Amino acid sequence: MTSLTQLITPACLLDLTRFRHNCRRMQAVAEAEQLTLRPHVKTLKSLQAAEYYAPASGPITVSTLAEAAAFASAGYTDILYAVGLSPNKFPHLAAIQRLAPDFTVIADSLVAVNALTDYASELALPLSVMLEVDVDNHRAGLLPDSKELIACASTLAESPDIHFRGIMTHAGASYDCDSKTAQQAMGRQECERISQAATQLLKAGIPCKLISAGSTPTALADIKHTGINELRAGVYATFDCVMAGLGVCEASDIALSVLTSVIGHQLDKNEVIVDAGWMALSRDQGTASHQQDCGYGLVCDEHGKLLDGWYVSGTNQEHGIIRHRENLTPPASIFAYGSLLRILPIHACATAAQYSRYHVIGEDGTLSDVWSRVNGW
Amino acid sequence: MTSLTQLITPACLLDLTRFRHNCRRMQAVAEAEQLTLRPHVKTLKSLQAAEYYAPASGPITVSTLAEAAAFASAGYTDILYAVGLSPNKFPHLAAIQRLAPDFTVIADSLVAVNALTDYASELALPLSVMLEVDVDNHRAGLLPDSKELIACASTLAESPDIHFRGIMTHAGASYDCDSKTAQQAMGRQECERISQAATQLLKAGIPCKLISAGSTPTALADIKHTGINELRAGVYATFDCVMAGLGVCEASDIALSVLTSVIGHQLDKNEVIVDAGWMALSRDQGTASHQQDCGYGLVCDEHGKLLDGWYVSGTNQEHGIIRHRENLTPPASIFAYGSLLRILPIHACATAAQYSRYHVIGEDGTLSDVWSRVNGW
Repeated sequence: MTSLTQLITPACLLDLTRFRHNCRRMQAVAEAEQLTLRPHVKTLKSLQAAEYYAPASGPITVSTLAEAAAFASAGYTDILYAVGLSPNKFPHLAAIQRLAPDFTVIADSLVAVNALTDYASELALPLSVMLEVDVDNHRAGLLPDSKELIACASTLAESPDIHFRGIMTHAGASYDCDSKTAQQAMGRQECERISQAATQLLKAGIPCKLISAGSTPTALADIKHTGINELRAGVYATFDCVMAGLGVCEASDIALSVLTSVIGHQLDKNEVIVDAGWMALSRDQGTASHQQDCGYGLVCDEHGKLLDGWYVSGTNQEHGIIRHRENLTPPASIFAYGSLLRILPIHACATAAQYSRYHVIGEDGTLSDVWSRVNGW
Repeated sequence: MTSLTQLITPACLLDLTRFRHNCRRMQAVAEAEQLTLRPHVKTLKSLQAAEYYAPASGPITVSTLAEAAAFASAGYTDILYAVGLSPNKFPHLAAIQRLAPDFTVIADSLVAVNALTDYASELALPLSVMLEVDVDNHRAGLLPDSKELIACASTLAESPDIHFRGIMTHAGASYDCDSKTAQQAMGRQECERISQAATQLLKAGIPCKLISAGSTPTALADIKHTGINELRAGVYATFDCVMAGLGVCEASDIALSVLTSVIGHQLDKNEVIVDAGWMALSRDQGTASHQQDCGYGLVCDEHGKLLDGWYVSGTNQEHGIIRHRENLTPPASIFAYGSLLRILPIHACATAAQYSRYHVIGEDGTLSDVWSRVNGW
């Protein structure tokens, strides 16, 4: 069996125990509230990982057509592609739809709805569409009380080539909510505004079968998710330093890490140099605005035990620089040349994206499997 | 022939005309100064691209063993792996060395030198090693006047299993030099300090065959590179917004771009939403400290013409937000739903890393080729 010391560093590790614990936590929320859970598979993009938190042929969310195609090929039939579609992607819908009849795309403008409706007439099956609603002035979506929302829904509902499934939203602003109170408030806002949109549509004679909302912080906020029937979230499966910084999880819940080797030192600067640079960790610095800036990642020993105060303070392409918050001298017992360390990611979606596979650490602490990842678009 | 409108966006484009122009510019510097040019292939990591700026079997620099193996298989024999080596990579050296006899690794400490020297006795061929010198207090390397430098060189020179090739440095601090004067000064410092190291070694009876230095800003600084015999640089082949911000190139020299589609708008905020998020552009924000912050990239029309003042102000995983510096309303003629745009990368090495291939735009402006990329470690 391969051991950690035989891997070429940097390598991406997935701790199965933590991962399963995280998956169960979100499943428990959905079950308690009798909501359909539609996990977003965009963090790990792995068919083998999805068996644990989004088994076929349950509903899933994807972020690329490449994921949609891969999961459709693996037997998933209800796939929501949660990014607005550009016309150059239309020719790729038919092949996915043939494998996954409930493959669903989204739109958030009349111009996009009209383009989809026109194109759908060329498809053999009705095209499933949901409308994106803006609940937090964050990025995309139609306003809940807008006339354009009703116009879009009417156009979709009336088209013989479209299957209008309902409305969806994602309160991305929850990533800036740094207290439980703020996360609860954002969770309530997300549910209230999307149900307001559903009410508007119902008044216009257009029922929404699916009312779908979610982000990891709002899904795990201690609130009742009233007015929705489907919960979506993704990064909860692994968590990361951003989520830990927001208090959504503990650092000890983070299931993804980057295995790295010590390749040098600058002892006069109390710096340890490792072979995980931004290519291995990503350039994400999502905790820079947090109370505790974790730089490019928190440092653990090779077994995954957090080394208090040690973090990756800087990166180049293939070099990472580890320092202590209080400028301590790196103990030679931990940071000797050749020592293995694990770095907890700032943003798991970005770190995982730097790899084509995960080395899975089983419940007995040894490498148990290699899971692949669907990259590209 | 495929046209741009047939590509799934986001996609990575390489403008052959600009790329060749950039390659010739660096070649001219090396030729004028009679320096060996050892291009760093870490930006594009592409065998097909390397034919233009680092043809086999000329000397190259790589940043991963995966690159080393791929280029060795393609006939490159003189490959410098310019990242300190951890012991878990030792078992992979022999296979590369068999294909590339001048495959060379680096070290910057006596502990690493001793580990390499011990391991080299197990190899069939002498292991080529260079020592890394610190010329700018930036990251790694031995100080030019240090006793450890001499001790390392002595150990290597005396080992029957090692071929000591010389010394190398990289003035990474040049990326913070935002004027021509500062870049020239850093270029002179890089050359002076590494030749100081060479002089120290010569005094100790250890001649350096190779004295290798470089970074794109210092290599292109208008100075005479005195005291070195080899020039290394990488990002010059494509350039990027960081290099343009430092005045090393013009934005119109940038050969790499990301093709993206308009997928929506938030017209009340003067925002255009495109399908290139940080997954497509990378999280690099290397111009944040520049006089002009380019956010996540500068915006061009689909033909590559810069749209003055438009930039990617924010990103999520698969969404990019385009705004104008002066909050202008996005003209519908340019930013209509479905329109194609090109985004110039902040840091080409990071953006290119998000892809497995490049769509090459030939000198007639049409797609002429697809070049592959060596990812992973």
